[in-house]
Parts: sequence; structure tokens; C-alpha cells
Amino acid sequence: MELSELQIEPIVAFALEEDLGHSDVTTEALISSDVKAQGYLMARSEGVLAGIEVAEVVFRQVDPSLSFERHILDGIRVHEGDVIATVAGSAGSIPKAERTALNFLQHLSGVATETAKYVEAVSGTKARILHTRKTTPGLRLLERYAVITGGGHMHRHNLGSGVLIKDNHLVASQAGEVGLKEVIQQTRRNAPIHLKIEVEVETVEQAQDALDGGVDIILLDNMGLDDMHRVVELAQDQALTEASGGITLDNVRAVAETGVDFISVGALTHSVTAMDISLDMRWEVRFF
Amino acid sequence: MELSELQIEPIVAFALEEDLGHSDVTTEALISSDVKAQGYLMARSEGVLAGIEVAEVVFRQVDPSLSFERHILDGIRVHEGDVIATVAGSAGSIPKAERTALNFLQHLSGVATETAKYVEAVSGTKARILHTRKTTPGLRLLERYAVITGGGHMHRHNLGSGVLIKDNHLVASQAGEVGLKEVIQQTRRNAPIHLKIEVEVETVEQAQDALDGGVDIILLDNMGLDDMHRVVELAQDQALTEASGGITLDNVRAVAETGVDFISVGALTHSVTAMDISLDMRWEVRFF
Amino acid sequence: MELSELQIEPIVAFALEEDLGHSDVTTEALISSDVKAQGYLMARSEGVLAGIEVAEVVFRQVDPSLSFERHILDGIRVHEGDVIATVAGSAGSIPKAERTALNFLQHLSGVATETAKYVEAVSGTKARILHTRKTTPGLRLLERYAVITGGGHMHRHNLGSGVLIKDNHLVASQAGEVGLKEVIQQTRRNAPIHLKIEVEVETVEQAQDALDGGVDIILLDNMGLDDMHRVVELAQDQALTEASGGITLDNVRAVAETGVDFISVGALTHSVTAMDISLDMRWEVRFF
Amino acid sequence: MELSELQIEPIVAFALEEDLGHSDVTTEALISSDVKAQGYLMARSEGVLAGIEVAEVVFRQVDPSLSFERHILDGIRVHEGDVIATVAGSAGSIPKAERTALNFLQHLSGVATETAKYVEAVSGTKARILHTRKTTPGLRLLERYAVITGGGHMHRHNLGSGVLIKDNHLVASQAGEVGLKEVIQQTRRNAPIHLKIEVEVETVEQAQDALDGGVDIILLDNMGLDDMHRVVELAQDQALTEASGGITLDNVRAVAETGVDFISVGALTHSVTAMDISLDMRWEVRFF
Amino acid sequence: MELSELQIEPIVAFALEEDLGHSDVTTEALISSDVKAQGYLMARSEGVLAGIEVAEVVFRQVDPSLSFERHILDGIRVHEGDVIATVAGSAGSIPKAERTALNFLQHLSGVATETAKYVEAVSGTKARILHTRKTTPGLRLLERYAVITGGGHMHRHNLGSGVLIKDNHLVASQAGEVGLKEVIQQTRRNAPIHLKIEVEVETVEQAQDALDGGVDIILLDNMGLDDMHRVVELAQDQALTEASGGITLDNVRAVAETGVDFISVGALTHSVTAMDISLDMRWEVRFF
Amino acid sequence: MELSELQIEPIVAFALEEDLGHSDVTTEALISSDVKAQGYLMARSEGVLAGIEVAEVVFRQVDPSLSFERHILDGIRVHEGDVIATVAGSAGSIPKAERTALNFLQHLSGVATETAKYVEAVSGTKARILHTRKTTPGLRLLERYAVITGGGHMHRHNLGSGVLIKDNHLVASQAGEVGLKEVIQQTRRNAPIHLKIEVEVETVEQAQDALDGGVDIILLDNMGLDDMHRVVELAQDQALTEASGGITLDNVRAVAETGVDFISVGALTHSVTAMDISLDMRWEVRFF
Repeated sequence: MELSELQIEPIVAFALEEDLGHSDVTTEALISSDVKAQGYLMARSEGVLAGIEVAEVVFRQVDPSLSFERHILDGIRVHEGDVIATVAGSAGSIPKAERTALNFLQHLSGVATETAKYVEAVSGTKARILHTRKTTPGLRLLERYAVITGGGHMHRHNLGSGVLIKDNHLVASQAGEVGLKEVIQQTRRNAPIHLKIEVEVETVEQAQDALDGGVDIILLDNMGLDDMHRVVELAQDQALTEASGGITLDNVRAVAETGVDFISVGALTHSVTAMDISLDMRWEVRFF
Repeated sequence: MELSELQIEPIVAFALEEDLGHSDVTTEALISSDVKAQGYLMARSEGVLAGIEVAEVVFRQVDPSLSFERHILDGIRVHEGDVIATVAGSAGSIPKAERTALNFLQHLSGVATETAKYVEAVSGTKARILHTRKTTPGLRLLERYAVITGGGHMHRHNLGSGVLIKDNHLVASQAGEVGLKEVIQQTRRNAPIHLKIEVEVETVEQAQDALDGGVDIILLDNMGLDDMHRVVELAQDQALTEASGGITLDNVRAVAETGVDFISVGALTHSVTAMDISLDMRWEVRFF
Repeated sequence: MELSELQIEPIVAFALEEDLGHSDVTTEALISSDVKAQGYLMARSEGVLAGIEVAEVVFRQVDPSLSFERHILDGIRVHEGDVIATVAGSAGSIPKAERTALNFLQHLSGVATETAKYVEAVSGTKARILHTRKTTPGLRLLERYAVITGGGHMHRHNLGSGVLIKDNHLVASQAGEVGLKEVIQQTRRNAPIHLKIEVEVETVEQAQDALDGGVDIILLDNMGLDDMHRVVELAQDQALTEASGGITLDNVRAVAETGVDFISVGALTHSVTAMDISLDMRWEVRFF
Repeated sequence: MELSELQIEPIVAFALEEDLGHSDVTTEALISSDVKAQGYLMARSEGVLAGIEVAEVVFRQVDPSLSFERHILDGIRVHEGDVIATVAGSAGSIPKAERTALNFLQHLSGVATETAKYVEAVSGTKARILHTRKTTPGLRLLERYAVITGGGHMHRHNLGSGVLIKDNHLVASQAGEVGLKEVIQQTRRNAPIHLKIEVEVETVEQAQDALDGGVDIILLDNMGLDDMHRVVELAQDQALTEASGGITLDNVRAVAETGVDFISVGALTHSVTAMDISLDMRWEVRFF
Repeated sequence: MELSELQIEPIVAFALEEDLGHSDVTTEALISSDVKAQGYLMARSEGVLAGIEVAEVVFRQVDPSLSFERHILDGIRVHEGDVIATVAGSAGSIPKAERTALNFLQHLSGVATETAKYVEAVSGTKARILHTRKTTPGLRLLERYAVITGGGHMHRHNLGSGVLIKDNHLVASQAGEVGLKEVIQQTRRNAPIHLKIEVEVETVEQAQDALDGGVDIILLDNMGLDDMHRVVELAQDQALTEASGGITLDNVRAVAETGVDFISVGALTHSVTAMDISLDMRWEVRFF
Repeated sequence: MELSELQIEPIVAFALEEDLGHSDVTTEALISSDVKAQGYLMARSEGVLAGIEVAEVVFRQVDPSLSFERHILDGIRVHEGDVIATVAGSAGSIPKAERTALNFLQHLSGVATETAKYVEAVSGTKARILHTRKTTPGLRLLERYAVITGGGHMHRHNLGSGVLIKDNHLVASQAGEVGLKEVIQQTRRNAPIHLKIEVEVETVEQAQDALDGGVDIILLDNMGLDDMHRVVELAQDQALTEASGGITLDNVRAVAETGVDFISVGALTHSVTAMDISLDMRWEVRFF
């Protein structure tokens, strides 16, 4: 997945407006515009880098004359002390961009790092780790990118790019009166032609009903490992399976070994631990 | 701190645009517009509620005809099973708003809940828990509100509403050539008149220099407990003190007992664990 | 498919800004604000109505105090002389909204009317008429809605909500070196899990290759009727088929009778003939 | 008439956002970023080109590193097979921009081509072909530009840049009680000083009333050829005349020969047939 | 001229965003939300009121539950001590809106008041006082409204709604080589049909050239009173005349008496003296 | 204080949209695109220049290919006839940008010029001249910059970046019941930690109460010179003092001599006299 500047620019602009306010009163009070400096983005803990392009856009929006050199690319595992990038130019511009650039980079690298742990935990199985729609409001696109960067895979981006029939849909469509098979067929008739149909089930029986209705993907919601395994066998060659609900690093391997195709993990994006990254400036040269 | 709709509306609109895409293909394929339903926002774990007004704006933007009743207000501690709010109306509108409303509510309640732990940990001391600028890009205002809701206190909102001279400023302003006292005085001359001046220091000696310069607040960055205590005594009646860096629930009480006025905790907003909240729908009535 | 006000409001606001300029100099020079009037939206030719809700939003944005009553709903076939809706209130507000409301309503009803002709032409076959991405820039969402209103069906909304491998993708991915089967498998590995995979082919041989690769939908681009029929037979139970390219009202029935599942028609949206609709005002009452 | 980038940029950005969605899933699944390609914009039918600058902005917004070379300029008549422009660069960027660029270019060239037919039909008379406000919502500026490019002329851009007293204004202003002459004089007093005053009339008598009121331009709405001719003679040296309503390629010459100054044609913009233009890619070079 | 909410709302929103920042820290620290209060907008000097609707929108945007009662309408002359409007509701909402509401109201009433002085100064002559394009950036629409409210009249709103050939155009079009007559005729051919043509001249000779070219309005730039009078006589029945440049309250009557149709005064909007208006709050009732 | 392009760009874009409308009909009718010209921004009166960077952004947004050379920088006193800047390039682009560039430059230079008069009037005293929040809606940032450019100093930017307890706050918070001291202490507890607390007082007694409450800055509202002097003495070493209300060039020196630290002058921004600056074009070279 690639990020385009068309998409990044407005998100960065909003974040900068939020952080700059009317002006950076500290920097403007102290730093004369004829001072040049360098800043080093440095990893303070181990993790998978994500968002270096976003950080660059932050510096560029604050001051297009800053130079920014990436030393490490997204997707690479960094270690404490690694210099990720160097930014150089007007000394006053760097502190204005610093916090916003770090906020993006630390958050996205946090997402990628956690994703990588799940991916590694299921390595050797066929299961792929998916993001969910439980993302931070405003950051869906970037967090999804970070999941991919960490080795995860793409679930639907939003309500328009995938069909997923959940509990609440069944309640609201009064499926009790018509049965899951009819619900799936009605959906097939009405949904855009490119979209597969996924149904959330909680029991093996529901899974069988969904298969009878011609479902494409079955979402196994908070199901026990044995039941998961039974559904995987039932679905064989007919539908894909996705496990979801209560997945942690402790149980993800066991879930993967049931043979499910996908495991979706909300915590990848709803409970992010920022990776520790700092920016250190060094005085460079004064023009007389 | 109060949130105004003027501020919430555009943030919610952006998040909904992100999640709705062109249309909710599942709901539109399945749910007829003459079905009415109710949804219950229910706590699935213990925590401090924050963002109920934001959630309401989400539902209202999706469908102004939905009714929304708050049962619990922001700042209240909820327990598993508590019904936080009820939303009622067109069955198809509720799933369209559900995920976005929950994403806000779970994230902000997560911030408030974590803040409350820190506030409780220092209770009985004079220390107040502060947010930092290490917030999620785009959510500064809401996360700050959540910190206050959890019992925390307001640091500067952005670079324009507070003066904080940090390491990098000293490098860039070449303070080495002039001394901290001159730096503080230069800042006093140039900064807006309403802003106190805070300086980040790492040693007791720097703290004394800052006091000699007439600093208003001293930020003690990653300082040991003994040194903190010494600075608190030096600053007595002259300046306020703020501890920062490496603060955890394990050490925050000890830090508070050094006598510092403020303790700022980046993790309140940069490493949020979402509170578990769900929305359960119930079929209500069909109009013939 | 339903339109939400969240989506309509900004499109209408942009169109009104475009048409109102700084102010309606004619109306303001002539019409005193204490005059009330009624306006009748009246069909001047036969067709299928689409966009009445958009028209209502136009009037409401110009003047929230106008009352607007719909007499005919979207999807209904109207005839010359039918009164579609009545708008009543301040006489000066109606001419300000008139042109913009009509421009939307005539365009969208034109799309729905043309779509209905194609749908009728294939009635009795299993073929469904699809829109394409050849829409008027800025009106994708509304035109797609108009196609559905006219009895058509949903193709992918945009590049993010469907996979369609076309000629140019094969060129750029250097498929020549690897074969269509590998291309499809690579796409399956990399694309979001909810999306079916469609491939554009020009010959029966390519269609067989695509089937061997496990394609979900085959797009038959400008193919002869006999070849179409052969591909339909090959694809039986393995993949869906879509005919595209050079479809007109004259040949659409013959195409449908080859047994294809879908027929996509670019002209539905790229070459629209506006339906004739007028607004006639009648003086109502003067307040003294 | 010139288009400025200031005006084009936001219109193109909105259209791209509409077509790209979150990302181009097909291209990203298939095309590696180290492949370079060329695309040829090629005419598939005869017509007058309009919008090549808009198309260029589309490609540039998607990827500023693409090179774009125009071979044919707006206003030139192209024939099937003519290469209009070449775009070269990263293979993945071209399909992302293709559809949106073509949608603009085909639509605007369609407008210019149709306009040129009307202009040619009246050649040798003094009549000039005008656009109306019956434009596609959101595309007023671009469609107006396309009309000019096709040889047409500028009517008022919006309600703020011209005075045109229509039927509905007369109803709402209760002209019945005061007479057309008074209406025109009231308008003259109240309207901005730079604006001529045009009145829509349906009979020769009304035209005479308007002339008596000092009208600048008379709009002859759906009037017979003989009556048109009589009004043209009456208006001689006093006012300009514009024919409107029911104008087609079949009757436009006869209308022009009545001696009217202007003929406005709604169909130029409300019922556009897209010109056929395609983009064909060719594989260029792979960097190792 | 009427202001529409469609136009006012975004201007007010931008101004409020500018003044509110993240939140009103004083009000939120002090005023409890269960206190109700009233505020009185009161004139502190004599002048013509303009902008009361804008002020109302400010209060409504800050808090839709505030009640706002207008006691005096735009265009009325107020005197010191007059209560212009009353606002009542939540005590905390009033100070948040106060400054922004007053900034609009004082500025626009300042424009209207100054305009009224010029209008009065020329009363009895046929000259009408016009605004220019020398307006405060961002406030063109509102300032123009204020000029009309003060009794002035509408010049062109912007570069698209009027033709005015100035010095710099003549330089750039190399009129020296072709003569003013040809310049006017070229403009007539190319400009939108509803726009009159105005030419700026500095001498009687130029004015005669312009008349020979068929100009509609002659702008007399910084011309002496005698020359103005001569041009007025030359233009009799052929063109309108507008005086401009160096107009003050001291000389405007003499200029008017030369017989010119219009006098445009840049100072009406480029050098505004705010009218003095205050808001005084009174404590009303506390809810227990 | 520095302006960043991030902040200037949207303000200029809005102003240009306001002035350009759909297109510059005069320039486009007359000036062929192969003509090159130069324009000279020239001072027509004496004053302090402010806003040259804003003017440059205007020209650049209209036509990025224009070259713009600054001859005089912001803050410099210019005299009649001084050439401030030269702009060169396409002849048609210059008149499109001219008025908007001048409107900014004349307004901001007017603010800077007036500020400089006040600053000079108090020279030799310790008093510093401050702006207020009585700015032109939409131009707060630029006008504040102009005040600094003229030698003034920064008051709070908006309601979020400073605490100022005014009359109306005391009414609304029912300070009568609790006393000023408690009000200040309550504010201290609730306000962000970086903000000093200022209180508006009208009498010496109130000033003493504020000092007892630990106020940081006392605002002396419309106080007599003797009382001001008494408060200055009381506040010695405890609080800063700011005089406000009814300050003019005639009395500002006397006010400064009472020893106050700051004098805030609303008229600097609410009643601006534009500085006279013109743009004169010269024909340069025609390309054949």
C-alpha cells in the first residue's frame, strides 16, 4: 500500500494548525533567523518504522527550504540509537515541526511494531493478520498503512468497500423471520458486484447456515478453538474464514493453528503504544 | 473545560466521511427504511466516561431524526454492564454511526480512565497531573478534554499558548554563548505578555540559573528524586515546578512526594488503551 | 441506495456558490421581501424522476423558511404536466434556488430515464445494467444514485472499492512475462480481502486464462456476440461475466441474450440528455 | 477566456478524491514502483479539444513527477487517431489519473464540439452563440470555458453578474400592477451600475413595452421567426436581442437569419455527448 | 441588498475560530454553566447601524440556545445609549461571542455611518455614492452591504462582474498603438454580453475618444471640477459619468454639482473608523 | 513575529476568490498572453511598510511564473515615491493581482504606521504599546503582525492564549458574593498553567483587591492619571500594569509617564487608515 501526497497533505496541515496555533512564541522569541541547525530523528527503542514520509511532509509544510534525508525506510526494524533521518536548515523551523512530526511517526511506528509481533506469532501458518475499523478517528488511512507496513493485511477500508453482515444487521433486518440464507441472498442482489459477502457468526450452526446461503467469508466472533476448527473444515473450498474477538499475543498462534484464513485484531489500532523516537538538534553554522 | 459544537462538528464530519465512504453497502442492502430500532451503548469494562457529547454528534450527523438519551455523563466512573446512552430511530441509521461513535468514545474514555489512575495515585499531595503535546494528530482538543475529565489539568494547548524553552531551543539560540539568564530575559522581552516562561532543565545547577533569570516554571526533565526535591526547595515562592519524563504509575507517587507542583505524563495521550464499550441493537417496531 | 444529507449538503453548497455569486442582483432589485409566492416543479417531458431530495436541499439552503412538498418520489415515471413538487414562501428566495435545483433534477432524471430504457430493453433476461466510472467529475455519487433509481445496478464506486485488471495494468505489470494466471494470483494476495477480482479480456483464450487463474468476474471488452456466448458457457458456475464497450439501445438486448450477468454502459452517465422540467411561480399573498 | 490554476486545482482535487477513494487497489496490487511507462491520450472520434490543461492538472496532482506533453491545444479540431498528449513516468501513477483525466477531457471536448456545430451553422450571420446557466452543477466555469473554446460567447456567469428579468420575477414583483416599464426603471435604480438590463418577453407587445422602459437586451423566449424578426426591427439601435428556447441545429440558422444578436442554447451544457478519447499505455523501461 | 446566511455563516465561523482559539480559558475557569445572564448591545456614539444580522449569527454559532432580540434594524441611525439588541441565556456563552460580534458590528456600522455622511453631503444632486474594490480582504461582501445600508450604491462586486478599463490595461494592451476606440470595440467583442464598458480617463480628450468608441460609463480619475463638468456635458445621453480619486467630505458636494452620475469613494471601506458599541452584561437568575 | 506561508496562503486564497470572481473580464478581453510587463509598487505617502510578503503571495497565487523583487522590507519607513517592489511577467497577470495585493499592503502598512506613532510618542518611558482583540474579523494574525512591525508588542492572541477577567466575567461569576480575591484564586486553580492572570479594574480599591488576590497583571480601564499612578506604585514588584480605554496620540505620553508597563490601543486595528500605495505598469517587451 502506498500513501499519496494528495492524501497526506491535508491530514498534516490539520495537525500542524492544531499544534502551531497562531505562532511558536518560544522559538520566535529566541531563535534568530540567520542560524542554521541540524536535527536527528533517533530511535529510542526497538520497533518497526512507519510514517517517515508523513514526518517529511510535516517538516516541508513548516518550511519548504528544510532539507530532509531519510536514512531508514518504512518497514525496517530499528534499534535504540539508530538515526532514522536528518533534517537541516533554518534553526527556528525545526522545533516548530518537531512535535507534530514525532507524534505521527511514534504513533504509526507503534502500530507497525505491534502488528509485526502478531505476524511473527503466526508465522508458518496460513493465517494473515488484519486491521479492523477500530481505528483512531481521522487516522484510518495512515493506521491502515502502518498495519500493512508491519506485515498485516487489508480488511475493508470503510462501510462502502466491503459487505459484513453483523449481529445488529440481523436484528434490524428481522432475519429471525426469514433465515440467514435469505439474508445473504438479498444482500447479494443489492450489493455492488465487486464485493464479497461476509457474515459474522457465533456458532457452528450459524456458520453452516451461512455456507448454505453462499457466503464468501465467515467471521467467527469470539468462538472457541474447537468450534473454529470445525467451521474451517466445513468451509473448506466454499468460503474463507476470519477469526475475531479477544485475540491477544498469547492466543493468536492457537487461533491461527485452527486453520482460519484471517485473524483480525482491533487492538492494533485502538490501543496503540507509541514507539519512542526523539529529535535532537545540533548547532551548525551562523551566517554573519 | 467545555467542548463546543463549533469545535466538535468538523472533527466528527471528517471521521464519518472516513468511515462511511460512498455509502454503507451492507445496511442499504438489508435494512428497510420503515424499521425502527433501539441501540444501547454499554460499558464492557470499568473506566471513566469521556466523549458522550461527541458520540451524540456522530449519531446526529448521520441522521438528525435519531433520538439520543444520555444516561451517564462524562467524568462518571462506569462499570461493566452499565448502559451509557440509548439511541433510537431508523434501524438503518444506527449501524452507520456505530463504529465512529464507539471509536471516539472508547478512545476518549481510555484517556480519561488512565488519567484518573494517575490522579488517584498522587491524591493527598499537591501535585497535579498534566497532559503534554504528545497527542494523537487531529485529536488534541478532544484528548485534552478527556484528560481534564479524568481529573487532570491543562498544560499549554499548542506552541502559541505557552512558552517552554527546551534543550533544542538552547542549542538553536546558542545559549552556550550567553547563559540561561540572558535567554530567559530575551524571551520575556519578546513573548506575549500573558505567558509565563518555563524552562526545561536537567540539573540542579541549571535550575538555579533559571531561577536567577526569573523563570516562572521549571520543567525537571528526567531528574532523580533527590535532585527534584532540591529544586523544589530552591524554587520555593519563586517559581513553580513540573516533573516530566519517564513517569509511570509505579513512580508517580514518589515524584509527587518531592513536592513538585505538576507532573506531566505523555503516555496519557500517546499510548492510549481504548475502553471497551459496545452498541447492542434491539428490534423495536415496524410501521405498516 | 440512499443519499444522506451529509453527502448532499456540500455538493449543493458548492453548486449554489457557483450560481449565486455575491448576490442575485435581479431578484434583489425587484422583489420586496414581504411578498409570498408558490413555485411548481413541473415535468415538461416523460421520464423517470431522480434527485427530488437534492432539489429540496437546494431550496432549503437558500432559505430554510421555504416549505417544500414532494408530490412524486424518485423512481416514479412522470409525464408532461405532472406537478413534481411545490415550494412556497418568500417570493425572492424561489428564483435564487430555481436554476440550481433544476440543473440537478434535470440531469439526474436524465440519467435515470436513460437507464430505465436499457433496463426495459433487457427485461426477461438475467442481465443487469451497470453504471461505469465514466461519470461527470464531482457528481459520481449522485449519478450512481440516479442509475440505481432508474433500475440499474452498482459497479464499483471508485478505485478503492473494486479490483478490475485492465489492459493498461497488464502492460504496466509486464504480464507478458508472467501470464494472466500469475497476475490474478498476485492480485489476490495483495488486494483487500473483501474484493472480488475482475479481469478485462478481449478474446476467448484470454477468458480461459482468467478462469484458470481463478478470476471472479470476467469483463468482455468489445467482444462479438458469439465469443461472448462462448465465454458465458466457459464461465458457467466459475465466474460472473460482464459485457462492456459499444453497448447501445439497439444492441443491448442481443448482448443480454448471450447470457452475460452484467452489461455496463458508459453512456448512462457520460452522455446525459437532461429531462425537461420547469419551475412556474404564482403570486400568492402580500402581507400588509 | 483563460482558466487559472487557482480555479482548476480544487475542482480536480474533488474529482480525484471521488475516484481514488482510499487507494487504487488494483494498481497497488500489481504494479511495482520501479516500472516506467508512457501513456498516449488519443482521439477516438472527431471533435474540438477542450480541457487539456485540466487533464494535465489531474496527472500532476496524482504524481508531480509525471511528465506531460501537450501535442494539440484547446480549440483545435482533432480526428480519430490523433495523439493529443503524452504522459510519462511511474507506471502505477498513470492508471490512477486516467479515468478522471478522461472524464474531464471527454466532457469538455463534447461541449466544445457541440458548440462548434452551432457556431458553424450560423456563420455569415451576425448572431453569436451563447451558453446559459443550464450547466452541470460544479462545472459552470469549465463548461463555460468549453463553450468559448468551441467558438461560443459569454452570457452572464451567475446571478450576480447580469440582470435578467424573467417571467417568475414579473410574477413575484407583481408587475401586473405596475407595468414592465416601471419594473425596468426600478431595476435600473437598484442594480449595480455596470450591469445591462435584459428582459425576457414572449410577444412583440411585451418587447415594445421593454423598449419603452429603456431595456438594454431583449430575450425572445420561444418566439416564432416572424415575431423575432419584428422585434429585431423594433429594437434597432435601441437594444440588443437574444433568441432562446427550443433552439436546435435544425432551426438555429433560421433563427440567426432573423437578425438577432445572440442565440442561447441550453443543450450545449445540459445535454452533453462526451467525445471519445482513450488512454493507451506502453511499457517503457524497468530500472534494476 | 440582502445578506444570506449561506454567505454569512462561513465568514463568521472563520472569525470565531480566530478569536476562540481552543477555548475561552477565562470564562471556563470562572463561570458555572447554571448561571443565566443578559447582555445589552448598546451604542456608545451616534451612527448608522449595519451588521446586526451578522452579530446575531455570531451569538448563535457560539451557542444556539441563546435568544437574541433585535431592537434596532440595519440602516437606522442610533444615538449614544440606544440599546441595539438583547442577548440572553447561558452566562458563559455571552463573553465568548462578545468581541467577535462587536468587531463585525462596529466595523460595518463604521462603514455605513461614513457612507451616510457622503450621501447626505450630495443630497439634492443626482450623484450617487459608490463603493470601490478597495475593501478589507475577506470582507468585500459585508462592507458592500454596509455601504448600501448607509445609502450608497453598488459598483461592480469583483473583476468578473464589470468591465473597467484602467491605465494599466491600456499600457498592457498597447493601446498607444491602436487608440482607445479600438480598445473599447475589442472589449465589446470579447466581454460577457451583460456588462457595460467603463473606461478610466484623465483628460477631456480621452473622454471624447472613449465616447467615440461607444463607451457606456466614463470614469473621471482625479480630474478638475471644470474638466469634469465639460465631460458631463459631452457625455449627455451617450454615457454615464463617475468621478473618482481624492474625494473627501470637503469636496464631494462640489464634485456632485458638476453633474456626474456617480462618485466612488475608496475611503468608505479602506479607512474605516469603527463605531463605538459595547456589550454590558447583567446577572439574571441562578438555577438551583 | 514571523508570518509563515502555511498561515498566509489560505487568507490570500480567500481574498483572491473574492476579488477575481469567475474571471477578470476586462483583462481577458484586452490583454494578449504574449505581452510582458513590469509593475512597480510605489509609496504615495509616508509610513511604515508591513505586509510585503503577503503581497508577494498574492502575485504568486495568481501566476507562479511572475517574478517579484522586494526592494524595501517590512518595518522600514517609506516616503512618497519610494519603489517598494517590482513585479514582472505576463502582462495579464498583474492587473488580476493588483487590487488584492494593494488592499493587504495598504491596510497592514496603515496599522504599522499608526502603531509607530504611538511607539514614538512614548519613547523614553518603559511603556510598551499593545494591540487588542479589536481586530478586523479574519485579519487578526496579519494585523497583529503589523502592530509588531510598527514597534508594538503582543497582547494575548485570542481567548485561549491569555486570562483576562473583565467586568462581564465578574457579573456572570457573581463575584459580588465572593470577592475579587476568591475569583482570582478560582481562576488560578482552573486555568492552564502557563497563563498569567490579568484583571480589569476601574478603581484603586479594586486594584488593591486584585493585588491581594495575587493577580499577575492589572488592567486599568479608563482610569484617571492620578489613580493610574497610585496603582502603579501599589503594584510595584507584585504585578504588571496595563492602561486601556480612551488612549489617543494626544494623551498616550501622559499615560506612559504614570509608569504603567503596557498601554493597549484598540484603534490600532479597529480604525485603520490605509497607507497610500499604487501599482504602475510599464510595457516591456512583446514576443513575436
